Amino acid sequence: MKNINRSIFFPIKKKLSIESINELLADIILSNTINKNFEINNISSLSNIRNNSIIFIDKEIKIEEHNDKLIHIITSNIKNKIYYKSITVVDNLNTAYNTILNNMFYHEDQIGYQDDFNFINGSYISKFSDIDKSCFIGKNCVISRGVKIGSNSIVKNNVVIKNSLIGKNVVICDNTSIGTSGFGFDFKIRGSKHFNPQIGIVIIDDNVHIGSSCTVDRGKIDDTFIGKNSMIDNMVHIAHNVRIGKNACIAAQTGIAGSVIIGDNVTIGGQVGFAGHIKIGENVVIAARSGVTKNINDNSVVAGFPAVDIKVWKKNLIKQRKNGY
Amino acid sequence: MKNINRSIFFPIKKKLSIESINELLADIILSNTINKNFEINNISSLSNIRNNSIIFIDKEIKIEEHNDKLIHIITSNIKNKIYYKSITVVDNLNTAYNTILNNMFYHEDQIGYQDDFNFINGSYISKFSDIDKSCFIGKNCVISRGVKIGSNSIVKNNVVIKNSLIGKNVVICDNTSIGTSGFGFDFKIRGSKHFNPQIGIVIIDDNVHIGSSCTVDRGKIDDTFIGKNSMIDNMVHIAHNVRIGKNACIAAQTGIAGSVIIGDNVTIGGQVGFAGHIKIGENVVIAARSGVTKNINDNSVVAGFPAVDIKVWKKNLIKQRKNGY
Amino acid sequence: MKNINRSIFFPIKKKLSIESINELLADIILSNTINKNFEINNISSLSNIRNNSIIFIDKEIKIEEHNDKLIHIITSNIKNKIYYKSITVVDNLNTAYNTILNNMFYHEDQIGYQDDFNFINGSYISKFSDIDKSCFIGKNCVISRGVKIGSNSIVKNNVVIKNSLIGKNVVICDNTSIGTSGFGFDFKIRGSKHFNPQIGIVIIDDNVHIGSSCTVDRGKIDDTFIGKNSMIDNMVHIAHNVRIGKNACIAAQTGIAGSVIIGDNVTIGGQVGFAGHIKIGENVVIAARSGVTKNINDNSVVAGFPAVDIKVWKKNLIKQRKNGY
Repeated sequence: MKNINRSIFFPIKKKLSIESINELLADIILSNTINKNFEINNISSLSNIRNNSIIFIDKEIKIEEHNDKLIHIITSNIKNKIYYKSITVVDNLNTAYNTILNNMFYHEDQIGYQDDFNFINGSYISKFSDIDKSCFIGKNCVISRGVKIGSNSIVKNNVVIKNSLIGKNVVICDNTSIGTSGFGFDFKIRGSKHFNPQIGIVIIDDNVHIGSSCTVDRGKIDDTFIGKNSMIDNMVHIAHNVRIGKNACIAAQTGIAGSVIIGDNVTIGGQVGFAGHIKIGENVVIAARSGVTKNINDNSVVAGFPAVDIKVWKKNLIKQRKNGY
Repeated sequence: MKNINRSIFFPIKKKLSIESINELLADIILSNTINKNFEINNISSLSNIRNNSIIFIDKEIKIEEHNDKLIHIITSNIKNKIYYKSITVVDNLNTAYNTILNNMFYHEDQIGYQDDFNFINGSYISKFSDIDKSCFIGKNCVISRGVKIGSNSIVKNNVVIKNSLIGKNVVICDNTSIGTSGFGFDFKIRGSKHFNPQIGIVIIDDNVHIGSSCTVDRGKIDDTFIGKNSMIDNMVHIAHNVRIGKNACIAAQTGIAGSVIIGDNVTIGGQVGFAGHIKIGENVVIAARSGVTKNINDNSVVAGFPAVDIKVWKKNLIKQRKNGY
Repeated sequence: MKNINRSIFFPIKKKLSIESINELLADIILSNTINKNFEINNISSLSNIRNNSIIFIDKEIKIEEHNDKLIHIITSNIKNKIYYKSITVVDNLNTAYNTILNNMFYHEDQIGYQDDFNFINGSYISKFSDIDKSCFIGKNCVISRGVKIGSNSIVKNNVVIKNSLIGKNVVICDNTSIGTSGFGFDFKIRGSKHFNPQIGIVIIDDNVHIGSSCTVDRGKIDDTFIGKNSMIDNMVHIAHNVRIGKNACIAAQTGIAGSVIIGDNVTIGGQVGFAGHIKIGENVVIAARSGVTKNINDNSVVAGFPAVDIKVWKKNLIKQRKNGY
């Protein structure tokens, strides 16, 4: 969503000057090398560097792209700062992230977020959404600000869609929630007051089918993505920043933790779980009830928990049974 | 649902002549032995042969019942055709199924499906539904065309019920979805455009209790069935064509894949998973978190994944622990 | 909820005299030592003895607290009755519980339960609820009789809240159900007619964040409790009588069975399951996909099913792999 204007989804609360950022973070700034002054109105991530933005860095990692109007707020744990420019070093990166985002953006985990709805045919449709006239929308839905839905898509009943761009011929079944906040919080200081503002979106490409009672969380800063022609069964949970390629088939009650990247043409059984931040190749088949904890190469077929090659898994089962199981 | 008229749930779009079927499938018909002419207005399955219907056959299997006004559309993989009469052989059975059903029936995964609702006491109740006056219906529910609900049943809030026949004294808790489309699609050509139309129903017998946020999918051609006095906890997923006997007790977050047959008096723990198309006997007990992959005999007690006799499972655990686990 | 008046959530249907109780249970009373007469208008549990109440005892257990206006209805399996006073012995304790509660209380699994709603800004808000003016309530919500919500809390869309006391700064995401009936029923005589009335509540302390499509069941007699600052991801199921301490972090699709007690500062991965009636200590970490079947000591880190110390679990995995897995 590099070029997507966040303000179609929620208005920017306040653009911040470098000076005002320094004031907001005064209690936690340890050092500061910024001597320019420009307006900050956006947040970057490692994969999407934006103009006039801040990027928050929690471990030493090279940033490929730079930008004159980008500041780096980094944790004091990073000793080697060669990769970063215009650096503010802070004591607590989570607090810095939360403070700045809560000041800069409206978001729905904070009182004050506003939308304005028309009540059309039994559902609440934001005045700031853009739904193709050919779509069918059922009853008791909520479609919020900024949502776009392409032609001939079907949204069944009691569906909530927020912060999302939905393609053509997409079907979303009853009681599903798309684009709500992911599970982002401060491990050390818990509670809703320290919730990490989630400001990304969900992008669902053409011809995707999503079952009933699914949850697809919005990206934290960028987007959660479901590729063209993907088929998703009931009660599947797709966390923030997950990216799923084309033609995925994902059976019921599977859960995909945050930032998992899944290639094209995967087939995933029911009740599978994925650890966060792993990468699944193309054409991968994952047996039902697998627990996937590591990257999986293209064309693999895996099973078990932790998931391994399915032949190894089966061989082990046979061995266990010989030995009395 | 042999004798249930589909058109109480959704109007038939178009009755097809043999001739029009041949036209629709022209691109994929390989051979054709049909020389009669009669009107086709229904679809049969192996367990329910109907008049004036088509049955789609994807593997060599004997059909017990025949009917003068039944045509068999079979995949070209079937070499031995002795079991079938009035045969059309097609290249791609999924495409044949989808083409014919999309032309013959309205269904809710295709634009054009219509219903007409009254708004009664906070819920949308189809003008073509039949709810006993003694029932209690909460707020924000959607009860669609053709749904019948017997006396003294309770439907709590934000519940969606479609394509279903519900008995007496049934309780359905908040945010549950009954009768939406199952996970039927073409493995080879994925995407919502190739979704297999689901035209069956859900039958829930008397005195069933269903928890919150469950999903019970309609049958593909026939019905998904939940027997009398069954007790189903929260977040249970019951896929298309599943048949559950009387007095089932199914704990939370269990998932039952398509076409599983479950006998009377089963007790199923939480977070259990069932592979599709298996048969579970009567009086079976399945421990929590089991993954059931094969048929289970009457009166068995099983545990583990793949589920085995619980004594074997426990013995193996003890052995593993002796060896350091 | 010792001092909480049940009638703020649902009116008492009928106060019962000892005499009327004897009549109601006439068919199942085996013996009776009660020779006082006082009015019964409440139900007690082992942890909450109330005035003018009944306690149902299903196994020999010492009752610490007594009360002059308390009667014990006990199962005939209990031979040693030294711990109990004012005893009625019954043949079938479940039937006794159901009969008395169905006569004494209104509850939502029985026809006749009433509430009265205002329709405010797209949601149904009970006239008998008490929501702080600073709260944000989304669309298509149902907030029932007796519910209190503290300042600055956010209830997103299509959320159902019943029988609950919610603190300040609480966030509840889309399609979540709080306070509906738990899975309480008679194992031997199944079906909705024999459902055990659930009359407890849910208490959610300040700063709790609950994700989308969660279910938090009301207590059976007392309360289900979620402690301050707890963070709960999507599709988490929390059964009746569960008590979770402060600062819990619980990832998606985890299920916690009835009456589990969880200490402060726990971290629980996704897709974890808990057997009922176990006790988890403080500062416990439970790896994703664990199945917890026994009490866990403070400061433990566990994994696997059945969950064991994570070091043991990892050692075993390495051993299995050496041996070909």
